[in-house]
Amino acid sequence: MINGLTMDDYQLTLTGVVERAERFHSGKDVVSRRPDGSIARTTLGACARRSRRLATALAGLGVADGDRVATLLWNQAEHLEMYFAVPAMGAVVHTLNPRLHADELGFIVGDAQDRVIVVDESLLEVLDTFRHAHQFEHVIVVAHSDTAPDGTLDYEALIGAAEPMEWPALDEGRAGAMCYTSGTTGRPKGVVYSHRALVLHSLTAALPDSLGVSTQDTLMPVVPMFHANAWGLPYAAALLGARLVLPGPKLDPVSVLDLIATEKVTMTAGVPTVWMAMLDALDAQPQRWELGHLDRLIVGGAAVSRSLLEGYDRHGLTVVQAWGMTETAPLGTVSRLPVDLREGEADEQYAFRARQGVAMPFVDIRARSEDDGFIEWDDRAMGELEVRGPWVAAAYHNGKGADSFTADGWFRTGDIVRIDHRGCIRVCDRSKDLVKSGGEWISSVDLENHLMAHPSVAEAAVIAVPDPRWGERPLAVLVLRDGMTADPEQLREHLSTEFSRWQLPERFEIVSTIPRTATGKFKKLTLREQFSA
Amino acid sequence: MINGLTMDDYQLTLTGVVERAERFHSGKDVVSRRPDGSIARTTLGACARRSRRLATALAGLGVADGDRVATLLWNQAEHLEMYFAVPAMGAVVHTLNPRLHADELGFIVGDAQDRVIVVDESLLEVLDTFRHAHQFEHVIVVAHSDTAPDGTLDYEALIGAAEPMEWPALDEGRAGAMCYTSGTTGRPKGVVYSHRALVLHSLTAALPDSLGVSTQDTLMPVVPMFHANAWGLPYAAALLGARLVLPGPKLDPVSVLDLIATEKVTMTAGVPTVWMAMLDALDAQPQRWELGHLDRLIVGGAAVSRSLLEGYDRHGLTVVQAWGMTETAPLGTVSRLPVDLREGEADEQYAFRARQGVAMPFVDIRARSEDDGFIEWDDRAMGELEVRGPWVAAAYHNGKGADSFTADGWFRTGDIVRIDHRGCIRVCDRSKDLVKSGGEWISSVDLENHLMAHPSVAEAAVIAVPDPRWGERPLAVLVLRDGMTADPEQLREHLSTEFSRWQLPERFEIVSTIPRTATGKFKKLTLREQFSA
Repeated sequence: MINGLTMDDYQLTLTGVVERAERFHSGKDVVSRRPDGSIARTTLGACARRSRRLATALAGLGVADGDRVATLLWNQAEHLEMYFAVPAMGAVVHTLNPRLHADELGFIVGDAQDRVIVVDESLLEVLDTFRHAHQFEHVIVVAHSDTAPDGTLDYEALIGAAEPMEWPALDEGRAGAMCYTSGTTGRPKGVVYSHRALVLHSLTAALPDSLGVSTQDTLMPVVPMFHANAWGLPYAAALLGARLVLPGPKLDPVSVLDLIATEKVTMTAGVPTVWMAMLDALDAQPQRWELGHLDRLIVGGAAVSRSLLEGYDRHGLTVVQAWGMTETAPLGTVSRLPVDLREGEADEQYAFRARQGVAMPFVDIRARSEDDGFIEWDDRAMGELEVRGPWVAAAYHNGKGADSFTADGWFRTGDIVRIDHRGCIRVCDRSKDLVKSGGEWISSVDLENHLMAHPSVAEAAVIAVPDPRWGERPLAVLVLRDGMTADPEQLREHLSTEFSRWQLPERFEIVSTIPRTATGKFKKLTLREQFSA
Repeated sequence: MINGLTMDDYQLTLTGVVERAERFHSGKDVVSRRPDGSIARTTLGACARRSRRLATALAGLGVADGDRVATLLWNQAEHLEMYFAVPAMGAVVHTLNPRLHADELGFIVGDAQDRVIVVDESLLEVLDTFRHAHQFEHVIVVAHSDTAPDGTLDYEALIGAAEPMEWPALDEGRAGAMCYTSGTTGRPKGVVYSHRALVLHSLTAALPDSLGVSTQDTLMPVVPMFHANAWGLPYAAALLGARLVLPGPKLDPVSVLDLIATEKVTMTAGVPTVWMAMLDALDAQPQRWELGHLDRLIVGGAAVSRSLLEGYDRHGLTVVQAWGMTETAPLGTVSRLPVDLREGEADEQYAFRARQGVAMPFVDIRARSEDDGFIEWDDRAMGELEVRGPWVAAAYHNGKGADSFTADGWFRTGDIVRIDHRGCIRVCDRSKDLVKSGGEWISSVDLENHLMAHPSVAEAAVIAVPDPRWGERPLAVLVLRDGMTADPEQLREHLSTEFSRWQLPERFEIVSTIPRTATGKFKKLTLREQFSA
């Protein structure tokens, strides 16, 4: 017998990522836009060096191995320093979403047992809404204008007074970061990421067929750093030496476009709502911004319509779709046009690009059919997507939500998908949002996408409503474009080019806005309560 | 306390690579050029499926967990099938270099205790030279023309008769492959690669700043598959879905260029001697081949001169230098032009590109100075390069050569380097080839590179010869270009633009060829024996 122990037992830790930033990419810019719109400039090397002092300061406050340290921060250099310092010192960085309800935030910090919180001064008001729910031992404030308020510690003063830490040797299986799911039902559940998971995620995200991150890039995560590791972009930038532009809280289209143009961003990432608003701004003023350097816009968090892809193509900009969840760190699939479709028809290309993508290396996928088998990869059958891989959760914090995992250890995503012969998934629905009519499934997402291609429709959400004869029927909730009208027969006619008669909604409800969750997803539960009667 | 065990314990195994090829990249071509020049076409999917049958056949012959199975094969689809089948079944694929001396081959197969050998029929004569040294239990022949000779088993017949294997679940730390060092001194030593090491090597090799492998690529490893995993290209192709072109034994420049042109190769890799010969062919017939698709030629195994880089630039082709060793799986550093040099002066760019490159992610580097400290990264001090990382050896097979590893677990490469502020290495010498004159080191590689930039010089090897006054002095062994002459004073004058007086060789020996090892390196030991008198 022979074994591989003759190979180095080198551990894949975020410490290695931070050290690489410090040693090899020290001079690379980290640009932060402050809440007041001003620009602060530092470098990956400075952030890495400051993170050593920050770690010493946190240790001095009692933060020890495996303790959780919360952040209530925007996309800003200090958040990157926390991404560096806390895992590298052996503790767990726990990013909080300031847009969640105070009750949820209170629950989350208690469930995670966060010992310390680092908060941007612009978010102190948010902290005040939930700090009664949990006793933080220390509140550290990133103060831009003044010093930290009484009863809190000043972030800069702490760093200024601390010596740099020599990073401890860590096992790659150790926890490094934590994020709560923003489930639309039930209590949020904690996902704990190991160092290994985040390192492998960054590495695989950087592959040419994934997001493709290199020293040539300037990355701007519009997706918040409190949202599933900002899709791995901060760590990928540190590992691979990309410039990093952190846009702070102001994410209106003009602010985002200005920053992309002035900082010559090559790659950005965010949810569809951001890119929908930005497309309108570009359509209104197509000559205003010079964007030749912008190579790709990654979109995830919800499916996008063909019209969005076409809209950006008109401006010479490429939108690339990806799929993932908090439980998958988050990247699971990326939709890059396969080589044999490069020369294909536009329709064929858009049909592919509107899909959520092919599983990244080491992400295993399968979809469970209604009869508890697994569907064929024929792009017809629908099933619930199950995944596993080095950066996929195998459990939630404290053993919650065990029914989200199969007996053989796969994560049940709750997404209903079709899979084509290439292994490319198309999300048809959330399992709880599927419409089941007369024993057949109707994909609400397919209906939504096609409704949004109608010239009058700005947004569409399709829900299931109870029906005495068919069990359930689809109902479409629509936001119309300014000054446009639409009548049900027109809309049904529009849909009938793609759907069978029995799949068409009978009811269309026009509203001024569709309620959304803190992460931009439609609140279908609210819609169902409103329209089921 | 909290830990990362909530993440999936997904193992990084070559089985996952083979399964990905089968599931996601099944239709991708694998093109083999046979010894007779004919072309055989198959696919990644077919190789993966056949490897399941091959594994069953090998198991039927008694190959069990951890057993070594030798290959004596060219770059050909059957070799890829062995790369797939043997590790995935839990055994160890041991690639043999048919260009080694029979004594060495005999020693190697005995040291590895290979149980079975798979040999291409064109290499049966080589097998006959060393098979007396070791008792293989079975010899399996890949026969192109006829069936396998008596006393051997036929590769195709074995596969045809076997059922496909369901791959066993393997731990990532398990051994999957093995290769012997081709050291110029001492007995060859075995390097055993774990699954994890080869998976992480493939993944990191595929990054945009490393070799950059994607589904858009057609890879042609000219570097043999018996030479340090063909620099990871076969596994990278399988993992990432690149087309693979395997050129077989005929590696003359015209054959290689023909294959690059007809198969529209985007990336190729090999040692400098191959690219030197190919450049001559291109210079002679610049219009003969359409090579617009050829994006990069990776060169490694020995340093290349600026003149080679310039020569390819004239043809619009980019040579990228990499450094590695059998002990590093093999990729350690890659020399990609940094973003801030893209707009720089040509001289500055060539000076960078002529270096061996920046350490890949997760490869840690340092260089030990003469006083047993570590040199500064100032590009002036010289020291012996030490490396560690997930795909770097921590020991040799059977505990041989323990003095190649430091007490704290780093591999001592034997390469004398300078390191610049970017962490980019420049190999100045092998430690045993350094010239130490009057207490100062002289880099033989620097002298060689500058000598080869002289219009009369085709090849140059600089060795140390004993000197009663200075300890050692450099001596240059030269091969001149056809019809050219060179006298010592001219050559010293040429060198004096870059070197101090005391660094210049007194002696220049003109030879018709410089002896090389089986892997293309100068046999400096032989030269020293010849010229030391």
